[in-house]
Amino acid sequence: MTRGCFPRWRLRSIHRLCSSCYYFKAAFGAFPSVKHPKKVLHVDTRYSCHATKPGMLNVHLVPHTHDDVGWLKTVDQYFYGDRNDIQHAGVQYILDSVVDQLLKNPDRRFIYVETAFFYRWWKQQTDDMQNTVKQLVNEGRLEFVNGGWCMSDEATTHYSAVIDQMTMGLRFLNDTFGHCGRPRVAWHIDPFGHAREHASMFAQMGYDGFFFGRLDYQDRNRRMVAREQEMLWRASESLTPPMADLFTGILPNGYNPPEGFCWDQSCDDPPIRDDPDLEDYNVDDVVTRFLHIAHGQALVYKTNHIIMTMGSDFQYENANLWYKNLDKLIRYVNQMQSNGSEVNVLYSTPSCYLQELHRANLTWPLKGDDFFPYADSAHDFWTGYFTSRPALKRYERISNSYLQVHYSNHRQWLSLKSLYTLCLRAMAVAQHHDAVSGTEKQHVANDYARKLANGWAHCQVLVSNTLSSLSGSSAPRVYCEHLNISVCPLTETSKKFSVNVYNPLARPVSWPVRLPVNGTAYRISDSTPLYPPQVVPVSQATAAVRRGRGYAVNELLFQVQAPPLGYSTYSVSLLQNGPPSPQSSPLPRAPKAVQNKFLRVTFDPETGLLSSLSNLETQQTVKLSQNFYWSRFIPVISQFLVSALTPFPCLIPHPLSPSLHQNSVVQEVRQWFSPWVSQVVRLYTDSRALELEWTVGPVPIGDDLGKEVISRLDSSINSSGVFYTDSNGREVLQRRKDYRPTWNLRQSEPIAGNYYPINSRAYIKDDKDQLTVVTDRSQGGGSIQDGSLEIMLHRRLLYDDVRGVGEPLNETSDIYPEGLVVRGRHLLSLSPPATAADTHRPLAQEFSSLPLSQPYWRRFKFSGLQAVLPPAVHLLTVSQWDQDTVLLRLEHQYQASESKEHSQPVTVNLQKLFSTLDVLGVSEMNLSANQWKDEMTRLDWKAESGTHHTGVTNQLSAYSAL
Amino acid sequence: MTRGCFPRWRLRSIHRLCSSCYYFKAAFGAFPSVKHPKKVLHVDTRYSCHATKPGMLNVHLVPHTHDDVGWLKTVDQYFYGDRNDIQHAGVQYILDSVVDQLLKNPDRRFIYVETAFFYRWWKQQTDDMQNTVKQLVNEGRLEFVNGGWCMSDEATTHYSAVIDQMTMGLRFLNDTFGHCGRPRVAWHIDPFGHAREHASMFAQMGYDGFFFGRLDYQDRNRRMVAREQEMLWRASESLTPPMADLFTGILPNGYNPPEGFCWDQSCDDPPIRDDPDLEDYNVDDVVTRFLHIAHGQALVYKTNHIIMTMGSDFQYENANLWYKNLDKLIRYVNQMQSNGSEVNVLYSTPSCYLQELHRANLTWPLKGDDFFPYADSAHDFWTGYFTSRPALKRYERISNSYLQVHYSNHRQWLSLKSLYTLCLRAMAVAQHHDAVSGTEKQHVANDYARKLANGWAHCQVLVSNTLSSLSGSSAPRVYCEHLNISVCPLTETSKKFSVNVYNPLARPVSWPVRLPVNGTAYRISDSTPLYPPQVVPVSQATAAVRRGRGYAVNELLFQVQAPPLGYSTYSVSLLQNGPPSPQSSPLPRAPKAVQNKFLRVTFDPETGLLSSLSNLETQQTVKLSQNFYWSRFIPVISQFLVSALTPFPCLIPHPLSPSLHQNSVVQEVRQWFSPWVSQVVRLYTDSRALELEWTVGPVPIGDDLGKEVISRLDSSINSSGVFYTDSNGREVLQRRKDYRPTWNLRQSEPIAGNYYPINSRAYIKDDKDQLTVVTDRSQGGGSIQDGSLEIMLHRRLLYDDVRGVGEPLNETSDIYPEGLVVRGRHLLSLSPPATAADTHRPLAQEFSSLPLSQPYWRRFKFSGLQAVLPPAVHLLTVSQWDQDTVLLRLEHQYQASESKEHSQPVTVNLQKLFSTLDVLGVSEMNLSANQWKDEMTRLDWKAESGTHHTGVTNQLSAYSAL
Repeated sequence: MTRGCFPRWRLRSIHRLCSSCYYFKAAFGAFPSVKHPKKVLHVDTRYSCHATKPGMLNVHLVPHTHDDVGWLKTVDQYFYGDRNDIQHAGVQYILDSVVDQLLKNPDRRFIYVETAFFYRWWKQQTDDMQNTVKQLVNEGRLEFVNGGWCMSDEATTHYSAVIDQMTMGLRFLNDTFGHCGRPRVAWHIDPFGHAREHASMFAQMGYDGFFFGRLDYQDRNRRMVAREQEMLWRASESLTPPMADLFTGILPNGYNPPEGFCWDQSCDDPPIRDDPDLEDYNVDDVVTRFLHIAHGQALVYKTNHIIMTMGSDFQYENANLWYKNLDKLIRYVNQMQSNGSEVNVLYSTPSCYLQELHRANLTWPLKGDDFFPYADSAHDFWTGYFTSRPALKRYERISNSYLQVHYSNHRQWLSLKSLYTLCLRAMAVAQHHDAVSGTEKQHVANDYARKLANGWAHCQVLVSNTLSSLSGSSAPRVYCEHLNISVCPLTETSKKFSVNVYNPLARPVSWPVRLPVNGTAYRISDSTPLYPPQVVPVSQATAAVRRGRGYAVNELLFQVQAPPLGYSTYSVSLLQNGPPSPQSSPLPRAPKAVQNKFLRVTFDPETGLLSSLSNLETQQTVKLSQNFYWSRFIPVISQFLVSALTPFPCLIPHPLSPSLHQNSVVQEVRQWFSPWVSQVVRLYTDSRALELEWTVGPVPIGDDLGKEVISRLDSSINSSGVFYTDSNGREVLQRRKDYRPTWNLRQSEPIAGNYYPINSRAYIKDDKDQLTVVTDRSQGGGSIQDGSLEIMLHRRLLYDDVRGVGEPLNETSDIYPEGLVVRGRHLLSLSPPATAADTHRPLAQEFSSLPLSQPYWRRFKFSGLQAVLPPAVHLLTVSQWDQDTVLLRLEHQYQASESKEHSQPVTVNLQKLFSTLDVLGVSEMNLSANQWKDEMTRLDWKAESGTHHTGVTNQLSAYSAL
Repeated sequence: MTRGCFPRWRLRSIHRLCSSCYYFKAAFGAFPSVKHPKKVLHVDTRYSCHATKPGMLNVHLVPHTHDDVGWLKTVDQYFYGDRNDIQHAGVQYILDSVVDQLLKNPDRRFIYVETAFFYRWWKQQTDDMQNTVKQLVNEGRLEFVNGGWCMSDEATTHYSAVIDQMTMGLRFLNDTFGHCGRPRVAWHIDPFGHAREHASMFAQMGYDGFFFGRLDYQDRNRRMVAREQEMLWRASESLTPPMADLFTGILPNGYNPPEGFCWDQSCDDPPIRDDPDLEDYNVDDVVTRFLHIAHGQALVYKTNHIIMTMGSDFQYENANLWYKNLDKLIRYVNQMQSNGSEVNVLYSTPSCYLQELHRANLTWPLKGDDFFPYADSAHDFWTGYFTSRPALKRYERISNSYLQVHYSNHRQWLSLKSLYTLCLRAMAVAQHHDAVSGTEKQHVANDYARKLANGWAHCQVLVSNTLSSLSGSSAPRVYCEHLNISVCPLTETSKKFSVNVYNPLARPVSWPVRLPVNGTAYRISDSTPLYPPQVVPVSQATAAVRRGRGYAVNELLFQVQAPPLGYSTYSVSLLQNGPPSPQSSPLPRAPKAVQNKFLRVTFDPETGLLSSLSNLETQQTVKLSQNFYWSRFIPVISQFLVSALTPFPCLIPHPLSPSLHQNSVVQEVRQWFSPWVSQVVRLYTDSRALELEWTVGPVPIGDDLGKEVISRLDSSINSSGVFYTDSNGREVLQRRKDYRPTWNLRQSEPIAGNYYPINSRAYIKDDKDQLTVVTDRSQGGGSIQDGSLEIMLHRRLLYDDVRGVGEPLNETSDIYPEGLVVRGRHLLSLSPPATAADTHRPLAQEFSSLPLSQPYWRRFKFSGLQAVLPPAVHLLTVSQWDQDTVLLRLEHQYQASESKEHSQPVTVNLQKLFSTLDVLGVSEMNLSANQWKDEMTRLDWKAESGTHHTGVTNQLSAYSAL
């Protein structure tokens, strides 16, 4: 695609997501070139790599620090070096020190990763220092790798938030350092397992390669023997290679230095003592040990280049220790060459190392699946964090959705961008692999939540300003943030109020609005809801968790519609006080069935549990029961791990006297399992999905047992040991019980070893039926029995798992001394496999781009789009970039072959799309918007022929047939 | 005194100890001036002090590091940062980092103290770096304080070794940095109590003031209330003020920063978080806390200047942390001045602070006693280390003596000085306050001993070379280092051998030589001994501790003589093998008495213990018993503390079947108290002192009780609660039971609270009798009952004392798994008080400048002196300084008034003193030889009139009467 200019459009350029859309084709004409992002004269880092010696074993020493954007301390505590009693770590000093030490010897190299920290540091520096650092970057002595705002988690993040945070970090680097600041290498050394969708995104962001540190110990062992620790990851079943091909390397020691060679202040390894006048001269010993390690490492890699990561968590706070000893190491080891040694050591960076691998011109094994689950030993599976801190996981997802709403503020962008930036940063930080993952300390989790709340507060100001301007009204606006527990002071007490309903999607959406009220009948005006508004009593479970923050006895329920990328307004007036109308009173007996025009659900009259699900359109029915279970734990379990889920978890008793509430909008069966587990089975009149709204907590610990709570669906589907989960909310991967596509698994944990992250959906299927569950947040789950699908909802644990956090995942706080209550929703759909995506893709889209209902906006209706986008295309990003530019990402949201109707290429005409934007020109960029698409020149890598991952090549050949 | 020239003398100048000699007067004529020590152009540090604000409270922030020259790690481990698992500390990095940080901001200051470390670092630096550091020193940004090779211990060191180590460190600074490298301030922030003799030496070394950190908690409390934490210490009863006057300041927080303001990497205090965009902005809080502390501190000091030590043990390894926050602290605190704050903060150094105190032109309280013992709370007296590691303490003392022997090597000085330097350095390092003090970890104690042994080995090469040259013989020489346990392979197996006897004193000395042999009769030729040689059987105790390293059954014993500063040679030939001659066979019964022409000693026939001592010359007799005791301990006791010596320690039983051995050279009674305590009571035919050679150990711990073993003398002397101990081997101080001269003591520990260091002697006396004990090493002791004098010999403890060492003082090793056996000697003399010094001064001199007996030198006799020095004058130092210069220190060794005969001024003529030196000129220097005497311009300080320390002013007035 070339760039062009449409002079009547006001915006100078629209950056289009280049390759995250599966088959997107644009319909533009030829565009003239547009202004390039700020550039500085530079030295290509590739030219600044030290020379290697072809006949020798070249050891690339990569000095680096791994700076968690929050873990045991908050991100700002880490930056300043505050609370060193918890963990010694101060990033401001790391950057001070590294820059000083780089200046002392031009041979030295350093890489930096986390832009969240670098940005904080950068803005405190003088012009002189900034220029010095620019010079170091231009000369390739300081190299940015990865470069996102943080190093995101891969198991619990949603791709849209990952793209945003990467874009923010990379943009800062681009704006600050130009070309030389663009990272060539993705670097996820710490995340606890690796998602294929991340690899796909990294490829589309233009990275030349990817390195990480953690993978299953069995996988690693096999790869070491087979010299397959470096490979080509074909990370999409939909994109044409090499679009999503990513060279991927496994680092030799996680991300630590080899044993005995850690010279950080946090380490105790002996320094090089090279003064023969002092005691314990140890140069010979050090050199011998190093050569031994280097030769050993060379045996498990393919080329005569090996990499050693010389650093670790928050290291280089006093970089002198590292560099002084590394200088000596290089000198003394290379001196041995005159005695016949064939080992050559050099300061290097991942991109320099990668360049040498590329020059080796070899073929590399192909990888098609992902790196989940991650086990570091036979009984230590890091699968618990797929679910840990479910409240935070949901809050993060809602926040992301909320953030996407505010695209349209370009009018006030200049004055308000700092507010917007705050929201963006809060979200970016939350993507860190110890943030939304739930693997941080409690006080840090609180800080992430606080930051998100703070972001919301700022965004509210933004929205208010924007709406004032759009609607011409400065009436006060109220944001009811506690609708999930039926709390909203305005609607509870007012006889008249209005509600704005905002739809961030590019298609019109209809959905139910629930507002806490105390009246029994209401009238809706301005816009007209699809069905008469209904009032239902607030559930017992909801009343129990409100804890005095609200006293609404009823919920007003009405089905609304909103235009694409726009909003509509509903005015509400109280008609009648008193008890709810009869049709919504609970029935005395257990309900037998509920149904709408799409679905029918039956219940077992004895147990009150679900007993079947039918799709009335397709005339298919499956037996389906659903219940909650919890498992006892052995002590050593916390944030990270699930290791001892017993195969027969403890059953939570049947629901007690379930009640049915039904009206023209909804039918809901309220199930009360125990004081800490309840559920509403809900079928909206207009919906193709059955909603299970679960409420779990506080998990009781009076028996001194930590517990993990799951919801398990048991169906008649013949799933044959296979189920499916999404990767970061996008493509779906097949999972097979007790099986890994790339090695012969010795299964040691029947439950934990079969758990996978579920970011947006999971399904089981057979030839006829596909049962899909769409989740409202990331959760862990598995299919342990055929026909069964279980999803972990909540965890509360009393012992630390000895992975560094140093506290159990107990989630108590002043507000909730008894522990957290968590509420969430699963949407169930039953379809033939061939059309299942047509249902679950839009469902998941609605869950991740949540419509927003806010009382009190004025202008009745507004849409930012002139035209509706085709169903396959998702308007992923539309965001003011600078005064004249909007960043636009369009995404084809159907995977190859998953939908006969929607998996096809789609054409979109941007010219007639927006109602408030005049498009003056469009330039296509890479996914992270830090490089023009036509300037992307990624290294090309050759895959081994005959790679044995059958599943993948099948899917790829299926792709080529398209 | 002026400098002159004697053209016929070969040596260009002789540096004379300027003021450590009490009344020394030289007899030289007028000397022309001689070459000045290397000088560089410089900025006086006094001019480089930051300006203060007269109307404000000026807070002097002194960035510093306290670098133990060995403690938990060895000195070289500390230097390199090795064994950080024991303690995180790496001095090479500290100096790297501090220099870097000083360069970043010219306002910053740093002080450095320990030349042992600085020297190691310096020689690894490039010329560029050395020039940079010189510039920093010249500008007063880096200031040396104290400047000795180490910060010596004050309780267990001998003044001669302290002067040597100070001289070595200061010389390095002088040679390297010239004038600006000369420390103005003595700085003993860590030693555990402070000796008056140290203060006297510091005054004579030209220091303007002295600061320390530790003193008795009661003393400190009183001084805080009275604002007497800064004072004038009149440190000698013999020198004319202000020769030994030393301004002395007690630091406010030991040597640590005020609470909450430690910004080292080893601390957890919150950094200054001054970015309002980040969380937890805390500038206001920091400023408020700082002002509060500053105002509080000002209340307990006299002037409107206060000092804060911003540093601690091995801090500033990453100096950026400290300086970055200190820069901010200064900026933000001083910003408050515009809001009316009257506090002014500045970077400073001890000399800058001292200068401001001097400018205040106040009078200061006078101090005359010392700062022993040191208690940090009511039951924590740091008196155990006076005795800890008695074997190391003796080894250090012997090594010092050995080192003094080698003065005469100037002929080969150029080629051999590096060997000599090694010996000197080993000794210098051993003076550290965690070395000879015994307060280090076991492996570090082993290292000090190893260093001393290594030093000996090098010195042996030196001596061999010198003697080859002097004697014209290159015959192999053997150094028998185990004569104390009667082991010497050469003498045990040879029928003929020669012995060189070297005398380092400036007067002829006669003493007994004991050599392990297996024959029963020997002939001595060449030189003739005073009495016929004798053979006595090796004692049971000696045989028990040899452990297979020797099998001599007898000891050959003969009385030798050696000329001043010279040696004589005795040739030994075997006459007869077989059992020892009858006169030395043990008697079956307990002896009743032994006597020579000077002394008579009686024994109690029932107990076998001493019962009386008589001086036959003066016709005085005292009842005197002596026995060993050991005390049980509460658990929390180790290297540093003696806290719970019970008032009634456990008696060790009477000696079993004591035996008497007598011959023409010696009479000795061998006492066997237990398998681990024995003693030989020895009276040499020529001696005025009774020798008690005690052997203690391994102290049994089978009962799981640590033990401290004392030797206690109980006499009929009416000592009235008073006894006397020396200070670092020089002047003697009076000690009064349960009393301190400068405050009203609340005694909380009847034993430990009355223990004092004994470096060379202690005595009790009444009007008629003085019983003096001269010790061969530093020990702790007290007089708990009238007439009683106890000295702690050995300690073995099973629990750490929680003062940082982290291990109990158990002294086990591979060689001695059962614990250490220690042997030592006490020399007892009985005299009228008025003439007691005439005996104990020479005795102590012989113990500290030990004659050396070595088999196998050739030339029969040699003396380095043409004339004998007067008895009052000790040739303390005669040492090659450089190719043309010898450093000479002459010391008047009698305290004011202690000897009618010898306390008088003495005149020495250097012209006719030496036999091998031609004196070309003499220049007088300060005690540490780093400043010409006539250029010494110390700050003058005014004492308060009416100072209440009666004891001191009496003694001083006694002095003025001379």
